[in-house]
Amino acid sequence: MEKNEEDLLTQLAKKIKIQRTRLNISQEKLAEKCDFDRTYISLLERGKRNPSYLSLKNLCIGLEIDLAEFLKEDVSDASR
Amino acid sequence: MEKNEEDLLTQLAKKIKIQRTRLNISQEKLAEKCDFDRTYISLLERGKRNPSYLSLKNLCIGLEIDLAEFLKEDVSDASR
Repeated sequence: MEKNEEDLLTQLAKKIKIQRTRLNISQEKLAEKCDFDRTYISLLERGKRNPSYLSLKNLCIGLEIDLAEFLKEDVSDASR
Repeated sequence: MEKNEEDLLTQLAKKIKIQRTRLNISQEKLAEKCDFDRTYISLLERGKRNPSYLSLKNLCIGLEIDLAEFLKEDVSDASR
């Protein structure tokens, strides 16, 4: 995978974790809400998966946010 | 695939076609801009593919639009 792609998945991972933290729910709880495996949430939050559009839509149901709204947020500086 | 998932991919397909038409470029040209196969663009525009996050990001480079902005637009009524 290219560096740029890794960066994009890392940013996506941060967004997921931030939004989950806002909801104050565990990875297990989020997984349950989305009908995902807990391991998959963990992999997503580490930028180790490139989810499909339908998976993202499903994830955002669990995260209680519109996908477009979710993606809009800039977290590129979140690690600084 | 569930009906709801088919609907989501159909809506995504419409958005792609609408934005490509706005740019006034062919499927071939869009494919070239994204470094995708022309067949893949055709499948996407018919709702026959569930693209990954990275594919969507790449597609939106070719479509000259931010992914969040692209997804925001409601085209659910576009066929009426």
